[in-house]
Amino acid sequence: MSTTLPQELPPTPYLRVDPVRLRHNIRRTAERAEDAQVALRPHVKTHKCVEVAKLQLAAGAVGITVATLGEAETFARHGFDDIFIAYPLWLDDVSARRMRDLAADATVTIGVDSSEGAAAAGRHLGEGARALVEVDCGHHRSGVHAHEAGTLALTAARAGLDVRGVFTFPGHSYAPDKLGQAAVDEARALTEAAEWLRVAGIEPAVVSGGSTPSLSSADTDVLTELRPGVYVFGDAQQWELGSMSPDDVALTCRATVVSHSNGRLVLDAGSKALGADRAPWATGYGRLLEHPEARIVLLSEHHAVADLGEAPLPAIGSRVDVVPNHVCNAVNLADTLYVEDAGVLTAWPVVARGQNG
Amino acid sequence: MSTTLPQELPPTPYLRVDPVRLRHNIRRTAERAEDAQVALRPHVKTHKCVEVAKLQLAAGAVGITVATLGEAETFARHGFDDIFIAYPLWLDDVSARRMRDLAADATVTIGVDSSEGAAAAGRHLGEGARALVEVDCGHHRSGVHAHEAGTLALTAARAGLDVRGVFTFPGHSYAPDKLGQAAVDEARALTEAAEWLRVAGIEPAVVSGGSTPSLSSADTDVLTELRPGVYVFGDAQQWELGSMSPDDVALTCRATVVSHSNGRLVLDAGSKALGADRAPWATGYGRLLEHPEARIVLLSEHHAVADLGEAPLPAIGSRVDVVPNHVCNAVNLADTLYVEDAGVLTAWPVVARGQNG
Repeated sequence: MSTTLPQELPPTPYLRVDPVRLRHNIRRTAERAEDAQVALRPHVKTHKCVEVAKLQLAAGAVGITVATLGEAETFARHGFDDIFIAYPLWLDDVSARRMRDLAADATVTIGVDSSEGAAAAGRHLGEGARALVEVDCGHHRSGVHAHEAGTLALTAARAGLDVRGVFTFPGHSYAPDKLGQAAVDEARALTEAAEWLRVAGIEPAVVSGGSTPSLSSADTDVLTELRPGVYVFGDAQQWELGSMSPDDVALTCRATVVSHSNGRLVLDAGSKALGADRAPWATGYGRLLEHPEARIVLLSEHHAVADLGEAPLPAIGSRVDVVPNHVCNAVNLADTLYVEDAGVLTAWPVVARGQNG
Repeated sequence: MSTTLPQELPPTPYLRVDPVRLRHNIRRTAERAEDAQVALRPHVKTHKCVEVAKLQLAAGAVGITVATLGEAETFARHGFDDIFIAYPLWLDDVSARRMRDLAADATVTIGVDSSEGAAAAGRHLGEGARALVEVDCGHHRSGVHAHEAGTLALTAARAGLDVRGVFTFPGHSYAPDKLGQAAVDEARALTEAAEWLRVAGIEPAVVSGGSTPSLSSADTDVLTELRPGVYVFGDAQQWELGSMSPDDVALTCRATVVSHSNGRLVLDAGSKALGADRAPWATGYGRLLEHPEARIVLLSEHHAVADLGEAPLPAIGSRVDVVPNHVCNAVNLADTLYVEDAGVLTAWPVVARGQNG
């Protein structure tokens, strides 16, 4: 897949990967999972790259997690054969046909969080389609309450699905004071949900959780599987949450200084390169890797305006590395990641970019 | 360019265009410019589509505005020959070569907002390259102060550029109580900057401004040119600012209801389809066209969670139209816009998607 480029780098803004940091991040998390004897099933929505997913499998991941049918199809086409679509998919005639085609190439598990969704999946996919019941552990996005997991599992099983267990996403770990609490909530909800499955007569083989912020607190006595995504690259959110250090950041957006308007640094990387994500607790719209004191105070489509306080401004025409707030959305804006490894420039296609459906 | 699709619509989420509303929006703004006897040079960053730009030219636009060299190259390849790159481009050897190639196909004007930028442009592009001096009228993004415009114009002219006038972007119009004030600031800054150009011995042929929120208040006695972008489609920001009505919204993201978790509507359109934009004054992460009472209270990459209050929830598996907060960023996430016109489904490629550099 990857292409070695003999020629010059692309125009800014572009995304560059530090392969040493990337491999370190992949290895560290794989070792943590191995030490705790839990399966690691990384979420590939973060990188959408075959090359990165292969590194993850080579380091011991049991399979991959995706968010959409389109992502699953893309990775299956590249030989990935154990895929969890961690999403309450709605199956109609068209998506069911796609699921059946996909099942010819890969073992696929889907999420269910409603009796309607379970019934549609059972009706369209037929006997034995694998599913996990999604549980809401405090993020309040999707999923049923833990005490409803048994009833839903039974409904899904009666609809013909092979209910393999339960999963949750502790997304409320994305808050500076909630990383540990989210992991506690995750373990509690999954324990309770797994118990309700047993009450319903279904032994949960899979108890799956994990987010990058809560990773180091994840209760691996409860969980059988971890599904972090962002840990491969890191981003300004992980930096500011304290879940990863700036020294771990393996993906940046290389930008050119185009102006010093109003005494601030104006860069050519805007929301169309970085994404517009800004959590309420974020200090700005991203960080500058070599200027930790800088704050991106204004972001528009093609401008990031950074305040460097009293520090001297890098010259107009010079280049800086921006750490996006949310790396998953930054990657999804790019067709290519550029990797400089031991002096060789390689282009990794973002093969699943835009595969939202 | 466009393709007539005989077959089914794509999986959700996808972007759909209402062509009747689109044509109405284009016509209304063209008429306003014509009535006021100002040139209309729409910003095509909003749609990145040849088909929409052609409708704009057919309605009387004098040329197009773009934000990047890549967008300019894309539109020049499709025959657009009068292009303003409304950006303080930094020109180095590579981008200068691209600019020279571009100039073979189109009349191109660039922005300058620093003596460094002007010197580099003059050095690389040679005599006669067209430029407008960018003025900051209150958005505090890029641009010089109005009273510095004459000095910069003189520097640029001495560097060899053909300084044609001044431009600004009244981006501070993006606040509920600032639409009119931003237009006043725009007119004042441009008047002063134009005067400073005359003091420097340069007659400004072009006095260019305009944003969609400030459009109806733009002072067309001062401005010779308007550069709005969003007006073609509208979005939730314009809706909530009151600068466009929900009845004007010509682009939506068609999404499927995948869950009723926690009694709320969970849709399969997240930040990877809608963009993550949320201004401090926005009521949520987008709006639902047919459910004005709904608020999108949580957005992640593939989930939008909408609170409908006491209203009944559309059924799981049904479809709704989401109005993105910022349509420019939503379009830049899609490869295709789907247009249903008089029963015929057409696909418009987003040809300049991702052309950030």
